[in-house]
Amino acid sequence: MKRAIVVGVTAIDNIETPFGNVQNVLGGSATYAAIGSSIFARTGIVAPAGEDFPDEYIELLKEKGIDVSGLERSGKAFRWEGFYDFDMNEAKTLRTELNNLTTFEAKLPEQYKDEEYFFLANIDPKLQLKVVKQLRKPRFIAMDTMNFWIEHQKEDLIEVIKNVNMVVLNDAEARMVFDTVNLTKAAKECLRLGPQAVIIKKGEHGALLYTEEMHFSAPGYPLEVIKDPTGCGDSFGGALVGYLASCDNAHEASIRKGIVYGSAVASFTAEDFGTTRLKTLTKEEVEKRYHEFREMREF
Amino acid sequence: MKRAIVVGVTAIDNIETPFGNVQNVLGGSATYAAIGSSIFARTGIVAPAGEDFPDEYIELLKEKGIDVSGLERSGKAFRWEGFYDFDMNEAKTLRTELNNLTTFEAKLPEQYKDEEYFFLANIDPKLQLKVVKQLRKPRFIAMDTMNFWIEHQKEDLIEVIKNVNMVVLNDAEARMVFDTVNLTKAAKECLRLGPQAVIIKKGEHGALLYTEEMHFSAPGYPLEVIKDPTGCGDSFGGALVGYLASCDNAHEASIRKGIVYGSAVASFTAEDFGTTRLKTLTKEEVEKRYHEFREMREF
Repeated sequence: MKRAIVVGVTAIDNIETPFGNVQNVLGGSATYAAIGSSIFARTGIVAPAGEDFPDEYIELLKEKGIDVSGLERSGKAFRWEGFYDFDMNEAKTLRTELNNLTTFEAKLPEQYKDEEYFFLANIDPKLQLKVVKQLRKPRFIAMDTMNFWIEHQKEDLIEVIKNVNMVVLNDAEARMVFDTVNLTKAAKECLRLGPQAVIIKKGEHGALLYTEEMHFSAPGYPLEVIKDPTGCGDSFGGALVGYLASCDNAHEASIRKGIVYGSAVASFTAEDFGTTRLKTLTKEEVEKRYHEFREMREF
Repeated sequence: MKRAIVVGVTAIDNIETPFGNVQNVLGGSATYAAIGSSIFARTGIVAPAGEDFPDEYIELLKEKGIDVSGLERSGKAFRWEGFYDFDMNEAKTLRTELNNLTTFEAKLPEQYKDEEYFFLANIDPKLQLKVVKQLRKPRFIAMDTMNFWIEHQKEDLIEVIKNVNMVVLNDAEARMVFDTVNLTKAAKECLRLGPQAVIIKKGEHGALLYTEEMHFSAPGYPLEVIKDPTGCGDSFGGALVGYLASCDNAHEASIRKGIVYGSAVASFTAEDFGTTRLKTLTKEEVEKRYHEFREMREF
């Protein structure tokens, strides 16, 4: 079993959905991803954390066994405020305070530079690239992003895509980067840039995996109530990479299983606000849901 | 092996998509459904056909082995003109000429009243109900519909739902009938009305099956080019019911397999305009795609 290193942001979030709202809760791409990963593998987190970032949030990460030596505690914490309409498909941003994100340098702790499994969660692609360049013997690097970087730093983003093993995008992002409504076409264009695998997250519709040789389709979990989709994609990616680190390989069969584990974790994430559900989530609960996924795709 | 009877409409269509357009082509819910069904089982079609309905279209149905004794040849043929935008998700109607649809009475040929497997393709729910009442020993009745009936004849539609074994809706229709964005919730509401199974078609995202006891999720087929989605849902439903008739049961395992066969047939339908691809489609091609579906959901 190898360790998984997650790079991204931590945040203090205000979230509103049709099912309620929460203030000043723990958030950020790296937070969700690291918690997702920690279910499967020892995990390290690299992110800015802000001097005003509540200690209890760092304690929560530690309780999950996450190594927090890569948290850069300086400046003011990044803050995000957003809401979801009834269809819950897209987070609408009301306000962001970048704060210490603008000075974060993504310097890896020395001991992380020899690690092999990385998840570059959503953050400035320039920083993602900076991380890649610090790695001495990476075996598997996966990356995620968001619409903001596609709109404003597409060239940097393409450069990151060329330097990773796996790209994880949601459907809207995939369409946007490759300028086509057809997800299969988008995935094939993406593969042409170099990565061995492309995953397209489709929320309630599950996730798709494309490689040069094959296609895999994972079902969505039939949740009757989705309270808050914040962090679903991040916890999906983190769980997937954590699972691969735990297998110490990125074979096709492992990636397929990892996608289903990621889908299981993401479905739990959506069941409550912020990281609430993830806080108490156990490996056993994830395994149980994994088996439900098996049954619901059997024919 | 039992016979499958499909009830619906035939039509003469003008279709435009981002990939081209066709004029005066064979169309209609019953047409697509009957051709889909005929791949698996002997099939009868019940629909209005119009005196001006081209004989060659009827010949085409006959060549597929479809019994056309239930075609009611009177009046002018129903005509539909529509187009699809780049996202290809929804047919936009430009013009309809109801013509003989307004006088069609859906009288079953005497020998069909003792049949056991029926697909009530999209048509006025009053007519669907009329068909149900003519049946002497139905074993399995599936139904489809469209947004027009949900908007204008919801009460009739609910009455049909209460009288069938399986409801087949697309995602937008399911949300519309049961007034929720959540498909799982919509499906459960639908089951409460009486049918044993609900299928929700999600186009490129595959299809979902819900019963009281379980949930099944079939993947979509990763087509790089969708030329024309017209008839996909109809050929899906027809193929599914044809497959069940060929098994002479509607056990859960058969329904799951039937959904994948239906998905395979629908994916071929989208590959060319109108019924073009279906005309030459062989059982072997469908089997091959069925096995691709198996591989792409394996983990």
